[in-house]
Amino acid sequence: MTPPFDLDAAVTAAAASARLLAFAPTAVKDDALTRMAAGLEADREGLLEANRLDLDAGKRAGLSAPLLDRLALTGGRIDQMAEGLRQIVALPDPVGSISHHTVRPNGLEIARVRVPIGVVGIIYESRPNVTADAAGLCLKAGNAVVLRGGSEAIHSNRAIARILASAVAAAGLPAAAVTFVDDPDRALVARLLKMDDRVDLIIPRGGAGLIRFVTETSTIPVIKHDKGLCHTYVDRYVDLEMAARVALNAKAQRPATCNATETLLVHVAIAEPFFARFAPAARTAAIRLHGCKRSCTLLAPVMGELLVAAQPADWDTEWLSLDCSVRIVDSLDEALAHIAAHGSRHSEAILTRDYDRARRFLREVDAAAVYVNASTRFTDGFEFGLGAEIGISTNKLHARGPMGLEELTTAKYTIQGSGQLRA
Amino acid sequence: MTPPFDLDAAVTAAAASARLLAFAPTAVKDDALTRMAAGLEADREGLLEANRLDLDAGKRAGLSAPLLDRLALTGGRIDQMAEGLRQIVALPDPVGSISHHTVRPNGLEIARVRVPIGVVGIIYESRPNVTADAAGLCLKAGNAVVLRGGSEAIHSNRAIARILASAVAAAGLPAAAVTFVDDPDRALVARLLKMDDRVDLIIPRGGAGLIRFVTETSTIPVIKHDKGLCHTYVDRYVDLEMAARVALNAKAQRPATCNATETLLVHVAIAEPFFARFAPAARTAAIRLHGCKRSCTLLAPVMGELLVAAQPADWDTEWLSLDCSVRIVDSLDEALAHIAAHGSRHSEAILTRDYDRARRFLREVDAAAVYVNASTRFTDGFEFGLGAEIGISTNKLHARGPMGLEELTTAKYTIQGSGQLRA
Repeated sequence: MTPPFDLDAAVTAAAASARLLAFAPTAVKDDALTRMAAGLEADREGLLEANRLDLDAGKRAGLSAPLLDRLALTGGRIDQMAEGLRQIVALPDPVGSISHHTVRPNGLEIARVRVPIGVVGIIYESRPNVTADAAGLCLKAGNAVVLRGGSEAIHSNRAIARILASAVAAAGLPAAAVTFVDDPDRALVARLLKMDDRVDLIIPRGGAGLIRFVTETSTIPVIKHDKGLCHTYVDRYVDLEMAARVALNAKAQRPATCNATETLLVHVAIAEPFFARFAPAARTAAIRLHGCKRSCTLLAPVMGELLVAAQPADWDTEWLSLDCSVRIVDSLDEALAHIAAHGSRHSEAILTRDYDRARRFLREVDAAAVYVNASTRFTDGFEFGLGAEIGISTNKLHARGPMGLEELTTAKYTIQGSGQLRA
Repeated sequence: MTPPFDLDAAVTAAAASARLLAFAPTAVKDDALTRMAAGLEADREGLLEANRLDLDAGKRAGLSAPLLDRLALTGGRIDQMAEGLRQIVALPDPVGSISHHTVRPNGLEIARVRVPIGVVGIIYESRPNVTADAAGLCLKAGNAVVLRGGSEAIHSNRAIARILASAVAAAGLPAAAVTFVDDPDRALVARLLKMDDRVDLIIPRGGAGLIRFVTETSTIPVIKHDKGLCHTYVDRYVDLEMAARVALNAKAQRPATCNATETLLVHVAIAEPFFARFAPAARTAAIRLHGCKRSCTLLAPVMGELLVAAQPADWDTEWLSLDCSVRIVDSLDEALAHIAAHGSRHSEAILTRDYDRARRFLREVDAAAVYVNASTRFTDGFEFGLGAEIGISTNKLHARGPMGLEELTTAKYTIQGSGQLRA
């Protein structure tokens, strides 16, 4: 019989490993990542078997088909995890880079150097690939990671984490650099969130309930990956064909993601010709529109039963589906006020050909990503050119928007002198 | 009679003002700062009178002489506040600067732009000059500030805040950009710390009790300005004259500050000749040494009653006085282990002429500021060339070390396209 999981000892070991990992050479970390990828590929059968236990339990527990799909590992998904780790090898190591260097009048040389954060706790639900992605990114940035996945994926996550930790050890680094919380007891999450003496950052990834619980409980700094209630505003001066294409892509290209548009704001002056282009495409894509009174009048002839009257709560609803709220506004100001009142400060777009309106929107909208004439769906570490991302931060502090390797580091000042005294 | 202070309404007004302040031109913000300085100078008498009420109440309440000194305003201190505000005018405005710009293969132009954080809550004790310093820095960075000072300084803080808010209004900006919590009830602090829908950042400045209370209560991100338990390690290969001078400066130049050295670690091989130079100077400076057993043997002949045997708790004590813990170590490794176990990750120094040891110390010590051959007293925004500072962050995230204007901002991505769709 295996002994019960000891959270306290595990986190202490992770913190000790972080001190060594902080100055591990890039080549050694890359070797660990390469071994992690190879290890996942080599134990494909074991991973699928562990996953089958989770899937069987999920079916017995009555998980929905989409949840079971998120939970499922396949040969292809295992390949993707391995490929993701190899992509991290190819990314530059942020540790040790200098963002600021100055020589002071008294001769002190002051540099601001990127260093790892220390121990990063990831608290996530469902998708087992997060185990590999998060561990890989944390390791490359020189951090130890404490992984706490959902209980529904515990067999899969355990099997993945075990492979990753042995790969880390095989590369000569402490295995505790990848620490898996191997106990589904929910009370452990609350305990982990209070270990601010050993854990430096908590990243929750999951539903609103998880995010709220973590924010309210944690004494450790939290970087949230919260909801995206994103808007696309179609301005009165606009290329209508482009606007219809972009609005459709922003809503429907992958509606379950946080950067998909949930509400379309349309300037009254072009509502009719815009809907004439957008509505038929929306109908074909099976998008269900929740329209304000004025837009319903215009949309009813085309949309039929794919149109319903918007309820007040709809403006604050993250659909994550092929539903879309639609509101006609009388001005850019009204659009900006709607976004300020209902947006989640994630991704917001204006479609316009007017220079001043584009500029106002870029300046005045408070969000992680503000777009002119492009789909909100681009808010993503790969699309932004940051390489892999550990998530999309809806925090304002430390990291905002796609969070890559650099955001998994912090800085320290080094000061080199020759006996300087403060006067 | 004035109506009771309404925290909820005040914070709502501050949040509304932050949306306007976010894109106020630099010239307007500088005009407000200049008017703030002039306003303080013009109402010198009113400020001194308000301060007298606090001082009288403080004396009645039996505040210690150092606390009364911290609380006191003088003509000179009012001039310093005004001068501090004029120095902020001279600093570059961080808002709008671009830290990263890229054109993606699909033609999207992506920029990372500095923007204000929004509403910053400052919770502080004693010194009334914090009211002006913090308000000035927040304003220049485009943030609204909610100021909650200690109840012992409420008349002084109220008078200062009133002048600042009128200056802001006179410059054409909303007066609520400088919001003063004009009610000494402690319950208001707890309520403020839960207003995460309107306040974006909390900066506590004060004693350990305040910092702990804020960290445990706040649902808003907190940047701590916590204790500094700093070490100076005198290596075996060292210029002994320089080492004695720097150690003395690090300890005694201003012992009540967080960047003063609290513990001296001395390599056993040079302990005797180092103490021969350091101890007489320490005695002259009235430094009281708390020595380990080996150092007591060497120090006793010179220090006399200025030497006591170190107690175990001393290694974890931030003296903030002319006391200094002293320990002889057998190796650099022992010094590094001592610092890792007892340091507060603020400022740590090695004094050495050995290249490899200097390099190891710089890499391996986890602290906001790591020094070679200089006094730990240099950890300071002015000394680092950042201009004024709002404090010295002991957080790892967002801001670490001296926190200037740039750390009072965050970033957003702007994405400009021509109809790009996500594939």
